[in-house]
Amino acid sequence: MPDALPHIVILGGGFGGLAATRALTGAAARIILVDRHNHHLFQPLLYQVATAGLSAPSIAAPLRQILRHQRNVTVLMDEVVGIDLAQRRVQLQRESLAYDWLIVATGAAHAYFGHDDWAADAPGLKSLDDALAIRRRVLTAFERAEQEDDPVRRQAWLNFVVVGGGATGVELAGTLAEIARHTLAGEFRRTQPGAANILLVEGGARVLAAFDPALSTKAQRQLEHLGVQVRLGQAVTAVDGEGVTLGEQRLAARTVLWAAGVAASPLGRLLDAPLDRAGRVLVRDDLSLPGHPEVFVLGDLASVQQDGRPVPGVAPAAKQMGLHAARLLAARLHGDTRAMPFRYRDAGALATIGRMAAVAQFGKLQLSGLLAWWVWLGAHIWFLIGFRNRIVVMLDWAMAYWTQARHARIITGEDEGQGKS
Amino acid sequence: MPDALPHIVILGGGFGGLAATRALTGAAARIILVDRHNHHLFQPLLYQVATAGLSAPSIAAPLRQILRHQRNVTVLMDEVVGIDLAQRRVQLQRESLAYDWLIVATGAAHAYFGHDDWAADAPGLKSLDDALAIRRRVLTAFERAEQEDDPVRRQAWLNFVVVGGGATGVELAGTLAEIARHTLAGEFRRTQPGAANILLVEGGARVLAAFDPALSTKAQRQLEHLGVQVRLGQAVTAVDGEGVTLGEQRLAARTVLWAAGVAASPLGRLLDAPLDRAGRVLVRDDLSLPGHPEVFVLGDLASVQQDGRPVPGVAPAAKQMGLHAARLLAARLHGDTRAMPFRYRDAGALATIGRMAAVAQFGKLQLSGLLAWWVWLGAHIWFLIGFRNRIVVMLDWAMAYWTQARHARIITGEDEGQGKS
Repeated sequence: MPDALPHIVILGGGFGGLAATRALTGAAARIILVDRHNHHLFQPLLYQVATAGLSAPSIAAPLRQILRHQRNVTVLMDEVVGIDLAQRRVQLQRESLAYDWLIVATGAAHAYFGHDDWAADAPGLKSLDDALAIRRRVLTAFERAEQEDDPVRRQAWLNFVVVGGGATGVELAGTLAEIARHTLAGEFRRTQPGAANILLVEGGARVLAAFDPALSTKAQRQLEHLGVQVRLGQAVTAVDGEGVTLGEQRLAARTVLWAAGVAASPLGRLLDAPLDRAGRVLVRDDLSLPGHPEVFVLGDLASVQQDGRPVPGVAPAAKQMGLHAARLLAARLHGDTRAMPFRYRDAGALATIGRMAAVAQFGKLQLSGLLAWWVWLGAHIWFLIGFRNRIVVMLDWAMAYWTQARHARIITGEDEGQGKS
Repeated sequence: MPDALPHIVILGGGFGGLAATRALTGAAARIILVDRHNHHLFQPLLYQVATAGLSAPSIAAPLRQILRHQRNVTVLMDEVVGIDLAQRRVQLQRESLAYDWLIVATGAAHAYFGHDDWAADAPGLKSLDDALAIRRRVLTAFERAEQEDDPVRRQAWLNFVVVGGGATGVELAGTLAEIARHTLAGEFRRTQPGAANILLVEGGARVLAAFDPALSTKAQRQLEHLGVQVRLGQAVTAVDGEGVTLGEQRLAARTVLWAAGVAASPLGRLLDAPLDRAGRVLVRDDLSLPGHPEVFVLGDLASVQQDGRPVPGVAPAAKQMGLHAARLLAARLHGDTRAMPFRYRDAGALATIGRMAAVAQFGKLQLSGLLAWWVWLGAHIWFLIGFRNRIVVMLDWAMAYWTQARHARIITGEDEGQGKS
C-alpha cells in the first residue's frame, strides 16, 4: 500500500479497538492495530475460565484471524512504551509508529487503592493469564485442604474471600459456591468441599451498585441461597498470604480474589490530558483528546459523562465508542469536519450469579432469577466471537447444567505465592 | 474404612497407574493414588496442544472426577520425595504414606544426554505446561518475525528445528509445516509465514525407527511433501538461544523443540534396583521389583524384555502393565501366590504426520496415507477420556479439517527465555 495513505494507529484490540478497526474496513487508510496479546478476549466470560467452566481458547480469538480478510490492517503484538503527541508517533517496545490518527483503547487494569503489595496475595481478573492463575489457586486450595491435618489450617484453605461486589465479584463468588457445593461433591475422601466458606466483601451498601436497588437485593438473596456470605459496608484494611482484615476483624483465608478496583490503563497518563480519579481520560464530547482532534480515547480508558451520569465501563459502551470513532474518522478522511458528539445508547445491564440465577435491567424492565439467566446465556453466546467458540461454550454449559461438572478443572503452571506452603 | 485393610499406594496417574487403580475397583483395600498433577493426561495428543489445535482441558481429565465413584481410592496431588523400601513408606512433600503394596508408574521425562543446559532453549514435551510453553514459543516466533526488519534475523524467527525423529518429533514437525503453510497464510502483512523452514533432525538412519523401514520411508516422503526438511544421521552438538549446531554446521533458529531423548522418571533411582541405560528399572517378569515382591514398577519406568525385544514405551503397553499389576495384586489379596508373568500383546503402532497423512502397523498389516490417518483419528477419539472431550476434539478436528484454522492459537504466560529478544 502506498505510504501516501493516512496512517491510523489503534492501540488495544478489546471491544473498543476491535470495533473501530472492523468499522474501518475498506477505508482508504493504512491501519495498524497494536495489542500486547495476540488475541481479542471476550472479557464478560473471563470469570468462567477462572472458575474452570470454560477453557481459555473458548473465550479468545486471535486478532490476526479475525482481521485476516481486512487488507488495510496490520496487526502487531507489542507493548506501548510512549506516545509523542507533538511528533505524532507511538513508541512500541520493538518499533516506532508514525500516525495521522490515533485511537487509544487500552482499557483498564486492577486497582488496589494504593496497596499494590496486595496484588500477589489477592489476584485480580483482567487477562487470560489472571484467569488461569485464579483457576490454579482455587483448585489447588481444595487439594491442600485434603492434605492438611490441622482443622484450623484446613479451614483456612477452604475459606475464600472475594473482595468487591460488582458483577465480577458476584459472578466469582456465586460460581465458587457452586464448585464447592456441587462440582467437587463426593470427590474428596478426607475433607468436605461443602465445608468451604465463600465470603463476598463489598465496601458499599449493596452488591451490583450499577443496578436498581431492588435487583441488588434480589442478587444478594440469590447469592445467599447459593451459600455465599455477603458482607456489606466493610472495607478491607489488610491482605496477606494468610488472610484478610476487615476493619478490626481478621479472617484466615488462603485464597483471596480481588474484584474491587478498576483503574484505567496507565497509558492515560501519557496523553497529557486531565484524568478522573480512576485515571480515565476526560475526553471531549466526540471522544477526542482535548487539544488533539486527531487522537481519540475510548472504552474503559475514557471518562464520558452523559445526562449527568458516567457512561459505564461495559462492553457495549466500548463497542459503541469504537464505532463512533471509526465513523468520525471516516468522515474526516472524506473532508467532513462537522462536529459529531458521541451518544451512548444504554443496551441494558446483565449480571449472572450462578446456576439459573441472574439479574437483568433494560431501562424500566427488570428481570431476575431463571428468566434473567436465560437472557444472560443467550446474549453471551450471541456476542462470542467465532462459530467454534459458540458451539463449544453451548456444549460446555449444557454439560455443566446437567452434570454439574466443570471440564477445565486442570491445574497448570506454577504459583510461587500460594504453592510455597 | 478400617485400617485393617491392606494399603495400596499407586504413584502416578498416567495410563499405567490409572489402569491399575480402576482395575482395583471393589478390591478390599485402601488405595491412595498420588500424582503431582491433578489430572490424567492423554499424552498421545499433547503435540496438538503444543501446536494450538486443541485446548489443554480437552486432553486432560481431573483424576478425582474419573475416580469419584471408586470409594476405595483417595487421590492426592503431591510429589514423591523418597521411598523407604525397608520400612514400606513413601515420603511425599506434604505427608508420609505407609504401604503394604506399592505400584510405581511415574513415567518418563526428557533427556538431554548430559546437556541439561539445553533444556531452556530446546523445551521438550511431556506435560501440559510443556505443551503450553511450546505453543507460546511457536506462536510468538511468527509475531517476532513480523516485526523484524533485518532479513537474516527475521528468517531465524521463521526457522524451526525439531530434534528427534520419533513419533513426537514427526508429529510436531508435520504440524508446524501445516501451521506455516496453511493456518497462518494471509494473516501477516510484512512477512510470509510460508517462508518458514521446518527442519527435523534425527541422529539415526530413519524417522519412526519403531516402525517397519518401509513405513519410515513413506513417513519421510509425507513429511517432505508437507514441506519439512528431514536430516538423518545428524547429531546435535550445541543448542543455545540463537540456534543449533549439527556437527560442524551452524543453523540460526529461534525455536528449537526437543523430541529426542526420553529418560525414565528419577524415581527409578530411589528403588535400589538395577536400571537400564535410560534409567528404567529392570523388573522381574511379573513387573515386581527384584527382591521386593510387594513393589511393582510399570509403564515407561519399567524395562521389560519380551522375546528378545523391549516392550515399547507406549500407552497400550502401560495400560496392559497396569492391568497386570492390579490382577496380580488382587490375586495376592486373595492368598493366591502363583507366579503370574506379564505378557505384552502388541496392539499395533500409529503415528500421524499431518493433515490426512499417517502410518500404521498392526503385525504384518501396514497402512499409510489417508487410510492410516482415519484409523489414527478414530483410535485417538475412542481412547480419549470423557464424553465432552470426545465431542469437542471431534468438533475441533472437523473444523480444522475444513477451515485449516487452529482454535487454540492463544498466547498465554510469559517466557523469559525467548521473550527477551
